[in-house]
Parts: sequence; structure tokens; C-alpha cells
Amino acid sequence: MEINKQLLLKKRPVGLPDKETWKLTKTEVQEPKEGEFLVQCEYVSLDPAMRGWLNDVKSYIPPVQIDEVMRAGGVGKVVKSKNQKFKVGDYVYGQTGVQQYVITNGVGYHKVDPTLAPLPMYTGTLGMTGMTAYFGILEVGELKEGDTVLVSGAAGAVGSVVGQIAKIKNCKVIGLAGGADKCKYLINELGFDGAIDYKNDNIADKLKEYFPKGIDVYFDNVGGEILDLALSRLALHARIVICGAISQYNNTTAVKGPSNYLSLLVNRASMKGMVVFDYAKDYQTASMQMGQWMLQGKLKSKEDIYEGIENFHETFLKLFSGEKMGKLVLKVSEG
Amino acid sequence: MEINKQLLLKKRPVGLPDKETWKLTKTEVQEPKEGEFLVQCEYVSLDPAMRGWLNDVKSYIPPVQIDEVMRAGGVGKVVKSKNQKFKVGDYVYGQTGVQQYVITNGVGYHKVDPTLAPLPMYTGTLGMTGMTAYFGILEVGELKEGDTVLVSGAAGAVGSVVGQIAKIKNCKVIGLAGGADKCKYLINELGFDGAIDYKNDNIADKLKEYFPKGIDVYFDNVGGEILDLALSRLALHARIVICGAISQYNNTTAVKGPSNYLSLLVNRASMKGMVVFDYAKDYQTASMQMGQWMLQGKLKSKEDIYEGIENFHETFLKLFSGEKMGKLVLKVSEG
Repeated sequence: MEINKQLLLKKRPVGLPDKETWKLTKTEVQEPKEGEFLVQCEYVSLDPAMRGWLNDVKSYIPPVQIDEVMRAGGVGKVVKSKNQKFKVGDYVYGQTGVQQYVITNGVGYHKVDPTLAPLPMYTGTLGMTGMTAYFGILEVGELKEGDTVLVSGAAGAVGSVVGQIAKIKNCKVIGLAGGADKCKYLINELGFDGAIDYKNDNIADKLKEYFPKGIDVYFDNVGGEILDLALSRLALHARIVICGAISQYNNTTAVKGPSNYLSLLVNRASMKGMVVFDYAKDYQTASMQMGQWMLQGKLKSKEDIYEGIENFHETFLKLFSGEKMGKLVLKVSEG
Repeated sequence: MEINKQLLLKKRPVGLPDKETWKLTKTEVQEPKEGEFLVQCEYVSLDPAMRGWLNDVKSYIPPVQIDEVMRAGGVGKVVKSKNQKFKVGDYVYGQTGVQQYVITNGVGYHKVDPTLAPLPMYTGTLGMTGMTAYFGILEVGELKEGDTVLVSGAAGAVGSVVGQIAKIKNCKVIGLAGGADKCKYLINELGFDGAIDYKNDNIADKLKEYFPKGIDVYFDNVGGEILDLALSRLALHARIVICGAISQYNNTTAVKGPSNYLSLLVNRASMKGMVVFDYAKDYQTASMQMGQWMLQGKLKSKEDIYEGIENFHETFLKLFSGEKMGKLVLKVSEG
């Protein structure tokens, strides 16, 4: 019998998740029933949003329950199938959860082609991360040619794609990232027009320098002080896309609200939240466009890949420590 | 010679404006030059936004300068004219400032008809206040038939009109106001579906009761804790109109940002600022519609009128103490 290592939520964390948050268990792999198929999971996606799923609050999806497999997007290979649409040998993306095997009826799953791009990329730039960036900046941010764009978490999975899309659309793009290496990467590798090292630069001064006429679109992944500084530098009719607030996810006190929100009034600006699932009907069009940009060399994808389901906890923490670049992925298959 | 009593800004206030903020002076009324006309001011408009104009910060209009006449909208009568378009005897609305006479070339002035409505109403429901309500709820708030609508400062000049327009558009409208009298007024006089007394009710409980499925449009005049509570009760795709933040205008500490702003993300909602001047090209259409609603008895206008330019300071403070209902107006002409 095959063994399935599964990561279960054991205890809701307060602040940064500690070692007691999840627990690894082993179960026997079951047989798929009629209409189902068995996926051997290879890579799972690690995202800041997962921190939110641990809190027992009303949100855009229900929280992960105690003793449930930790929710995650993942890619894997169909190894047994009693489903007409998915055959043994197919590679698929879906909400596999953090485990080595999953049985599904295929709802929410789609096939991916490992000969066109490496598998982990389907959890990132060619997956939900890329979709978030695409619809966030183009639809929610209402990006227009020539806009001045600020992106926070710019060396991260979503931010790096947002900035590149804005460059493709002939915008001036400045990224915020932590440390000189990430800032160099934004400019030299991704073609950003400038970068602000939020750990070492005076952010307010840099914003003034880079945006003498104000920010047209601010794509916010971080919240907190940086959101406030961006608010204080808006151009007329600016749009703020609220994609995330990583600086606030592990708070043990109340979220810091943006004190400068009245800049929205002064500048007739807007701040709008987004959840990528709302754009599901247009994923395919967007994916084709993203793939085309990648083939044309206009869009680069970077994955930071770690190994071992046993290392989930310490790998997950890299989302918040700043120790990674691009998309964080964990290989959960063995051998 | 005629004497012009003028209210000058003398000292920028910290917190609530005190008696040293303004000073009354007397000058001789001058003669209009070619192209100009002289207006005898009768009523000036008192608005929360005026508090913002006292701060020496970049905003949607420059601050009032020290020793300058305090900026205010006003209505008056043309008493001398060397301007073809404005004749002696015409009544006009414009940025007269807080004074008894003003000379102008007519830019930004328009005629009003005192036989159609009482003069003070042209500073309120038939003036900037009404325009703010109209464009704020219909354009910025993207109001749709059947929406559930929450209005703060609902017994105030803007809020009371916002709520009535939303009722005309067949929405469910709940108003927030301070005290039982104002709440009764909203329901009995203005036809609101419900009212929350923010001084005595448990606001969160009342919001839950009135909005079991969430708030579609929140029209915010107050900011602070009420904005946070409204955020926590949004419906999917809700719109928040940021019209003002009266709870924060006299702060001596930093503005309180909305801690619950991530509800924008969860609910794919937006928060948008507005300044009425942006809609100038459509004022006329809006005014005609407002006038029509008034004639049909669907829209009521209430003015709270005080007398004497000498009483500006204490009257102005009524904007913040809650001691008034509807539009606050000061009669500055004598006799």
C-alpha cells in the first residue's frame, strides 16, 4: 500500500505560526471511486493568503478547519483514474492541499502541460499568482498606458509579475522590496524603472523622487506604513489595488488602518479590494496572454523551490521573513 | 460710505477653532471696476469642509491664508454693477467669503431666483450641499435600485439629501445620527427606513439588524469608528463614498485610519473619495432634477439659520457639536 503524508491544521496560530500549528500524519492511499481520480502531488504553492485561511473569521473562503488537510494549490500527476476527462499520466493543477496524494472528482482541476513550462510555474506565473497579478493590475487597477505605478512586495510572486505587466503596457514602474539584492533584481532582471529598499531607504523621500507628479496606480501587497506613505503621494484619480497586507497578517494586535485614507478624497482616488477567483471565467484568455509574453521574453518567472513536506513550516515562514524571491514552492513528492 | 464687516483668518487652529482663529474687521466698501459688480452678501454657508481649509497642507484647494477673508459660499444681491451679465437687483451665489460685501468679476458666480426658493436653500439643497449629495450617491456610489444604503451624518446637510435621493431610487436607507430627536426626524420627516443613534445605540448590533445581508453603499461623512463598523458589515461589491470625516477634522493627533479596510479585499469592495467641484459641468442638470423632486414633495430641505457675522465662531462650532439639523447657514447682512 502507498502511504500519503498529509499536513493537518492542529492549532490556530496567534501571530506567526509556530511548530504546533500543523502536524504531519500518514494515511493509506485510497482507491478512487467512479468519476474520481488519484493525483500524486508534486509541488504545492505557498502563499501569504494561506495565513488568512488559518483564522476562524468570515472571509472570502471558509477557514481551514482543525484536523483538516492544510489548503493549498498544487500540481501533480494522475496515477489512477475512473474519470473520463482525466487520464493516467495527465498533469493537473488544483486545490490539492499539502499532502502527497489526493483523490478528486476533478471540480476545480485543470490539465497543465509540463513540456511547455516547468511544473512549479503552473502554481505561480502560469497559475493563480499570475492570474492575480494580471487581473489585479489590468482590471482592478484600470491600468492605462503611461501610468506611473508603484508595487509593493515587488520581488514577490505577485508583485514581480504586476511590475512586468505594467512595463509591457509602457508604464513607469517602481518596486518596493527588502534589501539591495532584490532591488537590483527588479531593475536589472525585470526591467523596473526603479526600486526602493524599504529596509534601508527613506521611503517618503524616494517616493517623492520617483513620483514627482504622484502615483497613478499603487498595487498593494503589504499594507501598514507603506500603504500610508503611498496614500500621501497619490496623483489625481489614482487607483489603489488592495491585493494583500502581508505586514499585518501575523499581527497579534489590531490591523493598522491607513491614517492617510483621506488622501482618497483630496485626490478623488479609489481603493479597491480583489480576490482572484472572481475572474475565473477569463483565466484561459489571461493564461494565453501570459504564456505569449513569456515566449516573447517580456515576462520572466522565478520560482524559489524547497523540498520535503516535513519542511512545510520553516518554508512557509520564508513568506514573511523576506528570505525568498519570486514564487515560493514546496516539492512534496519524494524521490 | 458703506462699511464692510469682514471675517479674517488670524491664526491657524490646533484642534477645535478657538476665539483667536478669526477676527472681525471693518473696511470701506469699494467701487466695482469695469467688468465687476458689487454683491451685498445675505447668507453664507457653514460647512465641515471649511475646517480643512484652515490647515496649511496640500489639499484639493489651497488653504485660506492668514489675514485673508474666510472662504465660504454665499448668496447675495447685486447692488452695483459694471458687468453686462449681472445687473443690479440680481441675486447670485458664489464664493463670497464671510463678509457683508464682495466685489467680483463674476467668475464662479451664478444667478439664483428667490421667488422659486428661499435664498438660504441655494447654499444648501439647491447649492453645493445638494450637488455633493447628488453626485456622491449617484455617481461615486454607483447607486442601483434596491441597494441597501447606510449614511452617516444623516441629519446633516449632505447626509439628509443623500438618504432622500436613495429613497427616491427605491433603496433601503438607514441613517446614523446623534440623539433620539434626529433619529425620529430621519424616519418621520425624511422617510428613512431606519435610524441608528450613534450616541446611545450599540452601532454594531444595529448594523447587523438593519443589514442582515450587508451594506451595498456606505456614504461616509464622519470617518473614525463608524467607518470601521461599516467596513465590517459590507456586502459583496460594496461601495464606500468618502465625502468627509467630521470626527477627525479637529483631531490634535493623527487621523484614525480604518483598521477594517481589508474588508475591501474580502468583499471586493471599493472606497472612493470625491470632491463636488469635479462635477461642475453637470450641476445644471442635477439642480433641475433636485428642484423637480422638491416640487413633487419627494425631497425636503431643512436649513438651520443663525444671524450676525459677529456670531460666526460660535455658529461654526455647531457643525461639530451636533447642535443643528440640516444645513447650517449664517445671515451676515444686517437689518
